[in-house]
Amino acid sequence: MIIILKAGVTETDAQTLLAQIESKGLKPLYMPGVERTVLGAIGDERVLQSLNLDGNPIVDEIKPILSKYKLVSRELNPIDTHVMLGNHAVGGDTFTVIAGPCGVESREQLLGVAQMLGKHGIAALRGGAFKPRTSPYSFQGLGVEGLKLLKQANQATGLPTVSEVIDASDVELMADYIDCFQIGARNAQNYRLLEAVGEQQKPVLLKRGMSSTVEELLLAAEYIVNAGNPNVILCERGIRTFETATRNTLDLNAVAYLKRKTHLPVLVDPSHGTGVRELIAPLSYAAAAVGADGIIVESHLNPCEALSDGHQALDAQQFAALMTGLRPFVHAAGKKL
Amino acid sequence: MIIILKAGVTETDAQTLLAQIESKGLKPLYMPGVERTVLGAIGDERVLQSLNLDGNPIVDEIKPILSKYKLVSRELNPIDTHVMLGNHAVGGDTFTVIAGPCGVESREQLLGVAQMLGKHGIAALRGGAFKPRTSPYSFQGLGVEGLKLLKQANQATGLPTVSEVIDASDVELMADYIDCFQIGARNAQNYRLLEAVGEQQKPVLLKRGMSSTVEELLLAAEYIVNAGNPNVILCERGIRTFETATRNTLDLNAVAYLKRKTHLPVLVDPSHGTGVRELIAPLSYAAAAVGADGIIVESHLNPCEALSDGHQALDAQQFAALMTGLRPFVHAAGKKL
Amino acid sequence: MIIILKAGVTETDAQTLLAQIESKGLKPLYMPGVERTVLGAIGDERVLQSLNLDGNPIVDEIKPILSKYKLVSRELNPIDTHVMLGNHAVGGDTFTVIAGPCGVESREQLLGVAQMLGKHGIAALRGGAFKPRTSPYSFQGLGVEGLKLLKQANQATGLPTVSEVIDASDVELMADYIDCFQIGARNAQNYRLLEAVGEQQKPVLLKRGMSSTVEELLLAAEYIVNAGNPNVILCERGIRTFETATRNTLDLNAVAYLKRKTHLPVLVDPSHGTGVRELIAPLSYAAAAVGADGIIVESHLNPCEALSDGHQALDAQQFAALMTGLRPFVHAAGKKL
Amino acid sequence: MIIILKAGVTETDAQTLLAQIESKGLKPLYMPGVERTVLGAIGDERVLQSLNLDGNPIVDEIKPILSKYKLVSRELNPIDTHVMLGNHAVGGDTFTVIAGPCGVESREQLLGVAQMLGKHGIAALRGGAFKPRTSPYSFQGLGVEGLKLLKQANQATGLPTVSEVIDASDVELMADYIDCFQIGARNAQNYRLLEAVGEQQKPVLLKRGMSSTVEELLLAAEYIVNAGNPNVILCERGIRTFETATRNTLDLNAVAYLKRKTHLPVLVDPSHGTGVRELIAPLSYAAAAVGADGIIVESHLNPCEALSDGHQALDAQQFAALMTGLRPFVHAAGKKL
Repeated sequence: MIIILKAGVTETDAQTLLAQIESKGLKPLYMPGVERTVLGAIGDERVLQSLNLDGNPIVDEIKPILSKYKLVSRELNPIDTHVMLGNHAVGGDTFTVIAGPCGVESREQLLGVAQMLGKHGIAALRGGAFKPRTSPYSFQGLGVEGLKLLKQANQATGLPTVSEVIDASDVELMADYIDCFQIGARNAQNYRLLEAVGEQQKPVLLKRGMSSTVEELLLAAEYIVNAGNPNVILCERGIRTFETATRNTLDLNAVAYLKRKTHLPVLVDPSHGTGVRELIAPLSYAAAAVGADGIIVESHLNPCEALSDGHQALDAQQFAALMTGLRPFVHAAGKKL
Repeated sequence: MIIILKAGVTETDAQTLLAQIESKGLKPLYMPGVERTVLGAIGDERVLQSLNLDGNPIVDEIKPILSKYKLVSRELNPIDTHVMLGNHAVGGDTFTVIAGPCGVESREQLLGVAQMLGKHGIAALRGGAFKPRTSPYSFQGLGVEGLKLLKQANQATGLPTVSEVIDASDVELMADYIDCFQIGARNAQNYRLLEAVGEQQKPVLLKRGMSSTVEELLLAAEYIVNAGNPNVILCERGIRTFETATRNTLDLNAVAYLKRKTHLPVLVDPSHGTGVRELIAPLSYAAAAVGADGIIVESHLNPCEALSDGHQALDAQQFAALMTGLRPFVHAAGKKL
Repeated sequence: MIIILKAGVTETDAQTLLAQIESKGLKPLYMPGVERTVLGAIGDERVLQSLNLDGNPIVDEIKPILSKYKLVSRELNPIDTHVMLGNHAVGGDTFTVIAGPCGVESREQLLGVAQMLGKHGIAALRGGAFKPRTSPYSFQGLGVEGLKLLKQANQATGLPTVSEVIDASDVELMADYIDCFQIGARNAQNYRLLEAVGEQQKPVLLKRGMSSTVEELLLAAEYIVNAGNPNVILCERGIRTFETATRNTLDLNAVAYLKRKTHLPVLVDPSHGTGVRELIAPLSYAAAAVGADGIIVESHLNPCEALSDGHQALDAQQFAALMTGLRPFVHAAGKKL
Repeated sequence: MIIILKAGVTETDAQTLLAQIESKGLKPLYMPGVERTVLGAIGDERVLQSLNLDGNPIVDEIKPILSKYKLVSRELNPIDTHVMLGNHAVGGDTFTVIAGPCGVESREQLLGVAQMLGKHGIAALRGGAFKPRTSPYSFQGLGVEGLKLLKQANQATGLPTVSEVIDASDVELMADYIDCFQIGARNAQNYRLLEAVGEQQKPVLLKRGMSSTVEELLLAAEYIVNAGNPNVILCERGIRTFETATRNTLDLNAVAYLKRKTHLPVLVDPSHGTGVRELIAPLSYAAAAVGADGIIVESHLNPCEALSDGHQALDAQQFAALMTGLRPFVHAAGKKL
């Protein structure tokens, strides 16, 4: 860790701090400069938290050298993690496609779309039973009824199911019905929820928050793994920027960056990442090309009747076209589809 | 509501949609244009949700006319809401100052700072018992022990207490110990939590999310009021932008805007809004000038030993200077301090 | 155009405005609503500028229906524009690769890298003679000397050259030496410069500004085309967001969006778009997959000695690997390389 | 400067780099750590530019200790700079108010508003003769004719004039007509223009770019001062964020930060900073409270007829109310109005 002192700090004050650093087992360094003095602390700087350097009045700025995450870091664990959805290994040789409606609306809707999607060989079926909505007057999901329909869809098609969990107290209940927990962008820093899914072993699809840095996303994953569950799938779904032509700005830089920094698999959500139906296919191709392990897309047999996010759902024909269009890019990336 | 159709949509298709609009009790309008056709729907457009216009393939864009929030809107309720913290009316003639440490750390720490702050006549004492932290390896708060200390501080000083709630399941427990719930920026769209604090009557201090628009903040408040609790205090605490010189970008535009759009009181958090100790006083003055109803600031008798956010905590001397400096601006704004 | 009036505006006031709209040759529409009145103006709304609706005190908000750009719009001109760089058609069947050093530094440097790149069959050589640098103390380019070296490199290799123009008064001079003008991100809204390159016929590579919306980029292109030069190549180069792990956030959503909205070719600059050498290849592949017409990348035989942006330059080996890696994705996109 | 090496770099490679650092006259420091090695360079790190550390393949990251700007830094020159507009010292005891129309439209318009504003004792009259507009079809200003009208307004009222310069080649011409150059947000990084106004002695009002960091703003000012003109006035005018309720997000954090980092005066533009007429007064008050040296606001006798930005122009009555409302806040800030 590099500690930049304020201009005018005396050597005596600096030495006091250096002694504290040494007392924590780190090697202290004193670097008096022309305009200001810089201190160094060599070793596992994470133990310096207890020194509260952050609040020390002689400290101007702290520059950490090491990343704050450990368990999810590729430096410490270079082997790609495979997270199993049924028989499908997310992060393996086969490009993962997860699809389904934004929200579970009825038995007919869910089974209909599940059967259509199943024919395309998708890895898992997505569908929200609990929907976090910006307005209290919007459709909030079917709740437990939706979970039961997901279970039925799983039994009918064999597809593992993914559904969003929005509260720690729902984790146990949901575990009876679904195969993978999704943490949505709005809950990306709901730490109680992260810990709750960390205390069980089912896979967790962790979406990046709308304004989360990639480091914050990795630290959110670190919460889950640290709590005991190594089965984390990261998901880039667009960040919030000044651009209004698209719903969010899909950050594929982040995908390439994450693949280098972590051993966890990384998916891309082009449906929320663009919010525009026509842009879903090209951004799915780009996701495959940039090195993502798969995509998660919204699909609905009749988008025009969807109770939420209909504008970004693909119908049967559009989904088939997506899969056809996607294949050559997945192959170019050296993966199977 | 204005509905812009895609180029090339036929009149027949447009008329089908107009008939649906009419069937919902709204007055339909047909506006064929040179390049594309525009439809109008006059009336309470909120009932149009069930038409799923969003997902209709002939629709290019929807432009709502009315705001999505109602209960918190000043148009529908022009009288300023006063939220009571003990005997102090937030939103009234007296500028509200809430202060205290970032986190509750010990009995000595909390009672010490509470007594110092109480002498300055603050309205309430803040202090976190459950701390949402970006890293799982950071201090996470004392939990229930912290709540008990807040209760003791309240009994010792008479100051109402404000503390962050991070999970719906904690609401009942916390209600026994504290006087006002704080919803933090990371939980600004944790709707289960918003509903939980909406189902009781204690005041709620609702912070804006790091990437929440003001409309989303108002809709989050609408969740709480809609669930039955009218005692909501809004709080601007800085948004996430490209600027890295300060921790966040405090958005005082939003404060002036909110005061015009809602009857709820609006506070400003210059501690998180700047993240830089030296900037807290000037931004507090600006908050008073722009029309905020008060501020919430972090204070610690020994910031250098704070377990979290020490770099933005004011010590006794700095807090006294803030209060002295603040007074003329509060008076210029026509309020008492 | 949709004109939303403020609450409480009288019908008389509204009718005055409608009469003005009609006097401009547009069809006026009156839509009295429950909470507020909405007016419509059907026809070419661009003529309404002279009504200054924006400043009218009875107007709350204006919602345009038509895009503000015309000449660059695909709706008005659906055929893809091909911009010629020598014999290479940017926007045609062959994926365009433009490469070269950030800045021209010396004859040896430029010719050396040009010969290496020429062997890979790139479409054009890039190199800055005038460098816009954030600090006045950074290397500002060789100026005219750099232009002469670019001319020599063109004569030696046959490669057309692309170089940034930073001031309208340089356009004539530069036209003697180079084949394509580049407008950099910092000058994306330097309208005098846009007009100057619009008054000649050499191709213009127009980069998106760091905080330009895609609509603003299209309007900047409209300036050039409106001034008489149809040979505009758009270039996405990353926008400024809160994310600091990469230098900018490359917005590939924008590429897919632009390809639908305009007939102009669209390139991607993964060097500035990421600012991280290791991310250039995967984002180049993604650019090909998302439908871009090509890429522009920085390359230097000895990045370690580059006077600017060395951290994002590819050496000979890295460039060769990029071209090899890129090929299957370009083919998957149905283009040649 | 702190230089973090990539993991796995050998000591030999590190020593080569340290020798280079020493050869530049800086003191080198070697800090081998657990996971990676860190180097230090003590002294005026600005001379290290020629080492191109940025492009060195063994370097992972560079962390500068010193600011990149010198001439505008308060550390090097702690005395507040006063910039004279006629007899008025911007940066002195009197709060500066600059006002006028967005664009000069006609003799009647300009002289009318100038006389109204002059009665309020403003420091200078603003008005654009060359207007940078997003669309080529918008009013672009009267050009030289506008400059002549500004000269006439100056002669009629005695008010110094401020007008935007959009191209380096206009500087000489404009110097004959106006008293202070304004550099607009779109040209905040047009370095040729910055140098051109730096080569003369008239005051320069330098606006922050829409996506400029405060460091970039200070470096833009450094360009002007470094070219020979010390008369620079900084202006915060709002940055581009995800928030759409206001035209920009006025960043008053930046004002307080700039006042600490530079000796140059800092103004605030609440007209562009909010884009909403009703928000101009409260944000002006906040500007005074936060420590700004003044404001620049748009005013028009008949905003409803303004050819540009009418929605954010204050009429005579609104301007009078602003001045009345502003006074107590300016006094609270210890300044005169």
